[in-house]
Amino acid sequence: MKIVVLKFGGTSVGSIERIKKVCKIIINFTKKKYKVIVVSSAMSGITNDLIKKSRLISKRFSQSEYDVLVSSGEQMACSLISARLCDLGFNSKSMLGWQIPILTEGNHSASRIVGVNKKIINNMLRTNVIPIVAGFQGINSENRITTLGRGGSDATAIMLAKFFKAKKCIIFTDVEGVFTTDPNNYKKAKKIKVISYEEMLEMASLGAKVMQPISIQDARLNRVDINVKSSFKNTNGTLITKKRSMQSNKVIRGITFTKNDAKITLVGVKDKPGVAASIFKPLSNNSINVDMVVQNISSNKKETDLTFTIKSEDFSKTDKLIKKNQNIKFRKLVFDKNVSKVSIIGVGMITTPGVTYRMFQSLAKKKINILVISTSEIKISVLINKKNIKKAIEALHKEFNLDK
Amino acid sequence: MKIVVLKFGGTSVGSIERIKKVCKIIINFTKKKYKVIVVSSAMSGITNDLIKKSRLISKRFSQSEYDVLVSSGEQMACSLISARLCDLGFNSKSMLGWQIPILTEGNHSASRIVGVNKKIINNMLRTNVIPIVAGFQGINSENRITTLGRGGSDATAIMLAKFFKAKKCIIFTDVEGVFTTDPNNYKKAKKIKVISYEEMLEMASLGAKVMQPISIQDARLNRVDINVKSSFKNTNGTLITKKRSMQSNKVIRGITFTKNDAKITLVGVKDKPGVAASIFKPLSNNSINVDMVVQNISSNKKETDLTFTIKSEDFSKTDKLIKKNQNIKFRKLVFDKNVSKVSIIGVGMITTPGVTYRMFQSLAKKKINILVISTSEIKISVLINKKNIKKAIEALHKEFNLDK
Repeated sequence: MKIVVLKFGGTSVGSIERIKKVCKIIINFTKKKYKVIVVSSAMSGITNDLIKKSRLISKRFSQSEYDVLVSSGEQMACSLISARLCDLGFNSKSMLGWQIPILTEGNHSASRIVGVNKKIINNMLRTNVIPIVAGFQGINSENRITTLGRGGSDATAIMLAKFFKAKKCIIFTDVEGVFTTDPNNYKKAKKIKVISYEEMLEMASLGAKVMQPISIQDARLNRVDINVKSSFKNTNGTLITKKRSMQSNKVIRGITFTKNDAKITLVGVKDKPGVAASIFKPLSNNSINVDMVVQNISSNKKETDLTFTIKSEDFSKTDKLIKKNQNIKFRKLVFDKNVSKVSIIGVGMITTPGVTYRMFQSLAKKKINILVISTSEIKISVLINKKNIKKAIEALHKEFNLDK
Repeated sequence: MKIVVLKFGGTSVGSIERIKKVCKIIINFTKKKYKVIVVSSAMSGITNDLIKKSRLISKRFSQSEYDVLVSSGEQMACSLISARLCDLGFNSKSMLGWQIPILTEGNHSASRIVGVNKKIINNMLRTNVIPIVAGFQGINSENRITTLGRGGSDATAIMLAKFFKAKKCIIFTDVEGVFTTDPNNYKKAKKIKVISYEEMLEMASLGAKVMQPISIQDARLNRVDINVKSSFKNTNGTLITKKRSMQSNKVIRGITFTKNDAKITLVGVKDKPGVAASIFKPLSNNSINVDMVVQNISSNKKETDLTFTIKSEDFSKTDKLIKKNQNIKFRKLVFDKNVSKVSIIGVGMITTPGVTYRMFQSLAKKKINILVISTSEIKISVLINKKNIKKAIEALHKEFNLDK
């Protein structure tokens, strides 16, 4: 059997008209003799409505019941798609997590798929019944509904593609694919045809919102090739795969940026072992994510300056936590809420020397000051003043030949 | 174990504030050492929204997927109730049809409960976990979600009360109980304390909207006593039971009326065997419900006049069906769309002579003309002109001492 997994995101099924369009896409694949497994998210807006209701009940809403509540969104979407296909003369059934079943482990609302029973769906495929699988949901060993957290429907699609050895796994969404940089911010951004898991993982982690990093990691670990494409326009999307990029002349594949970071510097911190841990532990306990961290040697050698970045929305909470922290001593807290992290990503940089130099030089030419630097094997991030984002992206996009 | 089943209708859980109120009611029962099984409908409005969506997909929406779609409404409500109880320090779990499971038979969207697995819920009750059971839903032998049709959540409550041998089954709703007649129409209407299944069945069939006739029949067949009461006001409701009414001085228990009936008379129908069947078969095939039927002997003995009533919304369809019906011949079709059926109900009339006479006399005194009469063992219905409804109810309410 030539199996394809088609996953539709919330905006793709966001209205009755769009659901009808989605059904056309599904039917086109059956016409090409594919055995189609559909995975659907909830109609856009529905999940947020449900979450709003849960918050009105309690801020400590039971995690287990939260999963029962929000999973109803995918249930609705699947039944609508399935009924539409039936109405058009096709055979189709919605399949909820418990009906397959999709087995999960881990905490409620952040579970992971550990098993998929193939029997019922294989029977359906053999008898030309199109299964419309509810994304984002499964059941645990106690027969309770679980959900998979952010990007959960992508995870469902990827795991089904793995278990059913699908020829293709196509993620239909509201963008045309993965771009060299955000096309809303820079018009010369180009769609990327093929990108490696690792590059996509960095792109996603650093701000490209096409897929959640955890889903890309799922695909990478399970060696599932993913096509990301638009459910609105019939254009080629982006293939995310293990294969090395074909456009090998391009060292850098993409440029990402963040818009709402804040930088904090603790000046004159007493330099002794464990001081960084003392600073970051209470932040971590309060779910504040620290991103870039740099420690500068201060003039006074018994002291050090510690700089780190956080989301700007976490600033006031962070400020309070640090000031009431008895375990650390410092002379001054300096902050800047108008910073942005710009990153270049590409596996090419492993084998190509001089990428760092080219990045810094092209920013310097535009008189853009670099505040903090952070690097990994396949990406370089710099912190700059927020007002320079556009200028920086333009310069880097040209420097690394992404305009072409 | 002293078990009570508490069922909450759509308006009772119609907002977050109302769900919080419902939880107070539940907690009060646990304080009285009851083991509580809760059954909830969907929040009011939700089911209609889902049905609207289904109609936009197709007017022939798959019945099986319809059940998947609409059952999500109860799923939401149950998780919200359960999470609220957890938040208040109680132990509670939502329980969906497939989790118990509640087994059903029959067509989709009109299934009947045939079995309830008691194991999991008994375990919950023993360990003080409050089960919040999704009303209206179950699964069939093919592991597909089924729903129970109109009044389905009441059916769930009644069947759970039966299987768990509950001491009480309380249906919480938006009215205070069953009244002698509609209090919105006649201010002197009185709440009925105790009513027999049979009387309630007639009341419900004839227009009292507290419960669906099918649910009352369920309760009667399974000998489950039902308390109907308000979830908003803490007043005594109405007990529906097999016991003979304690208020034995009252022959008549209630008066109902319809507002949108139409009367059709076929004048000069050729009187031969099978003619009534020929008239009513096409109506039945088109789901038109014929209520009262009277056949008068015409002056010409080879002809007869046939009068029957239908819902006025079915009038034009009925008119067409009769006129194009080749199998019947008649001289004239006469209709009246301004009629109303007023009924008096009471098991007392079986043993009390003169009820019919008293009814007709009191209407005659008010100069109300009776168009059609129909009787059963415990009810008498008359068709009158719609403009006389109020006057008729006032007269009958007084005549049968219901004002007191």
